[in-house]
Parts: sequence; structure tokens; C-alpha cells
Amino acid sequence: MRPGSALRVLGVDPGLTRCGIGVVDVERDRRATLVGVTVVGTTAHEPLDARLLAIAEAVEAWLDRFEPEVVAVERVFSQMNVSTVMGVAQASGIVIAAAAKRGIPVALHTPSEVKAAVTGSGRADKAAVTRMVMKILRLETAPRPADAADALALALAHAWRGSAPGSPSAAGRTTAMTATALTPAQRLWQEAEAKARRGG
Amino acid sequence: MRPGSALRVLGVDPGLTRCGIGVVDVERDRRATLVGVTVVGTTAHEPLDARLLAIAEAVEAWLDRFEPEVVAVERVFSQMNVSTVMGVAQASGIVIAAAAKRGIPVALHTPSEVKAAVTGSGRADKAAVTRMVMKILRLETAPRPADAADALALALAHAWRGSAPGSPSAAGRTTAMTATALTPAQRLWQEAEAKARRGG
Repeated sequence: MRPGSALRVLGVDPGLTRCGIGVVDVERDRRATLVGVTVVGTTAHEPLDARLLAIAEAVEAWLDRFEPEVVAVERVFSQMNVSTVMGVAQASGIVIAAAAKRGIPVALHTPSEVKAAVTGSGRADKAAVTRMVMKILRLETAPRPADAADALALALAHAWRGSAPGSPSAAGRTTAMTATALTPAQRLWQEAEAKARRGG
Repeated sequence: MRPGSALRVLGVDPGLTRCGIGVVDVERDRRATLVGVTVVGTTAHEPLDARLLAIAEAVEAWLDRFEPEVVAVERVFSQMNVSTVMGVAQASGIVIAAAAKRGIPVALHTPSEVKAAVTGSGRADKAAVTRMVMKILRLETAPRPADAADALALALAHAWRGSAPGSPSAAGRTTAMTATALTPAQRLWQEAEAKARRGG
């Protein structure tokens, strides 16, 4: 049941050990619905090629099954833990190429942009993000496995990016915001975005 | 004209701006022949998804066209220049997944392993690597573009890995080496390998 006017976003929180994939439909009035969520997991005991293949196959299956209009991927920073950053970057490359191969646009967002968008604070902890994801998607229990909430938060953050609640152009299209229509969360989001642009 | 006994190796020197792809056939007596070489280039002006897609499409086309028995990819280190390491890792992830999808084994080698294997010195410069690649493959001119030589060196190094010249088990199969059969280049190679294992 996909409402005709909704924007479908597939969010990916890339990683070798846990790669979260979440799909949401977001209406023009910002109302969001959970479509599906999963975490692809491989262990360090498996060879790198098998691990990356598992991620590629899962992401491609989800892209083909849910046909999102846009894919949102967590932006990888080289400042991350050096022991994990390479695997995260390799996984993100696979996700981005898989979307591009299908002609689906890809957007990258930093963790603080995502946190600011869904909680109102760029420094929110994991529990706060999960609580807000549950509230926004009207879920009675937290998404399982635990890491799945991050992929959903990423998808929600992308859909709300640049949108004011109730504005006719809400739900993810790039649009100029009028300052008066901003909620505190949106102001933080704008600030985080501007900061990310300066940093990039 | 692919000799029945030769090992075909496709080497990839991953990168966003220049991704080198080289294919060689290596006989059991270590004699090597150039099959093909290219460099896929994209500029920083293009969006990341278009750049990664160009790499994915080129690598997949070469895998399907030349059907290598093994793919050798340069091992990415997080100690690299932070502004390029993410793109290199993203490209390498795409290459590894593309090979794995086709059931082709993937081997990772460090730049010093490759230099030691083809030149006898783990610290050889680019010109020395290119000269040795030309000599080994009996080329009258240097491979073009310049970065293509690195992908060929990687493929050659992989094929020669663990092989003693003229030994019946040469040409890339994992095999125990007898110390007496080692050339100076192979000793350096063994040392570089052992060092990489300790470091990883």
C-alpha cells in the first residue's frame, strides 16, 4: 500500500559487520510509514569478498523489491576508527554503485545531520534516535536488530531535508525554506547541513 | 590466444580519479603476456555516484570479457592520504564485490609486496616498476596511461606469489617455497608478505 504522493526513501547505514537497510514512505505532510527494515550481518571470520558480496546482494534485492525514489547513505568520514573505516567505505561504495546502476539518485548525510533532523539535537544518543524513529513511524516496539533504527533515521532525515511541516513542497524535494516556518529541529538540521557543506 | 596452462590474472589499482585495470596471462614457467590494460578516469566535477558507477561498469565489462581466474586488488591502508582514501576504499569495495558475484577469487596485495615481486625492492619508485613491467611483458613502450603499469604489476606480482622460477607449481597457486629456490626478489617478497601479515 504505497500512497501515490509519498516519497519512498531507502536508507543505508553501511558497515561490514552490520549494514542496516530501512525503507520508509513519507507523505508531503511529513507523515512517515515503515515499509521494511533489515540488518545484513557478516562476521570477521568470513573472507572480505564474501562479506562484501552479502551486502551487495542484500542491497540490490531491496532496491529491486521496494523501488525507492532515492537512496540515502551515511556519509563516511576518514576521522572514524581506522580499523572500521575501510570496511564502511567499501560497503558504501557498493551501495552507491548499485543505486546508480538503477538510475536512483543517492544522497549522503552525516550522522549529526540525521540526529538533528529526527531528534532536534545533532548530538543525540542511540537511544534517543531509536525513540524518535519509533514515535515518527508509530511503532510500538523498537526496530530489530537495534542498528536498524539508524538506517530508518537516515531515510527519514533525507525525506524531511529542507521541508517545512505542512508545506506543499515538503517530503524531500529540494526547496527554499522560509525561516518563519522552521521548527527548532529544522533549524538544527539547517545548521548541521551548512556546517557539513563548509567542512566538505 | 590464451595458452591452456596459463593463469589469467586481472589486477586493479583502485581509485576514483584513475582506476587501473590490467590483465596478464602467466605461464607455469613465469613467462607473462599482456592481454589488456586500461585506466578508467573520472573527474572530481562528476557526482560520486556517477564516478563509482563508471568504475563498476568498466570492471564488470573487463571481468566478463576476459574471464580471469583470479582478481588481484591493491590493499587499501587507512594510513593513506585522508582526502583520497575513502574514494579508493569505495572503488575497491565495488571491484571485490563484482569479482565475488562472478565466483572469481580475490587476492589483496600491498604496494610494497607488488614492488618487491616485480623489481626486487619493496621501495622501488614508479619508473622502476614501469621498466620492470615492460621487461617482463616484453613491451617496447610503457603502458599508457602511466598508471596502467601499476595494475599490471599487481597482476604479475599475484601470479608470481609463492612461485619459484621453473617450479612445477609456479603461476600463482599457493605453495610452500623451499628457501634454496628463492631469488633475491622472492626473498623480499616473502619478507614483505610476512610483514603485511604481522601488520594486519
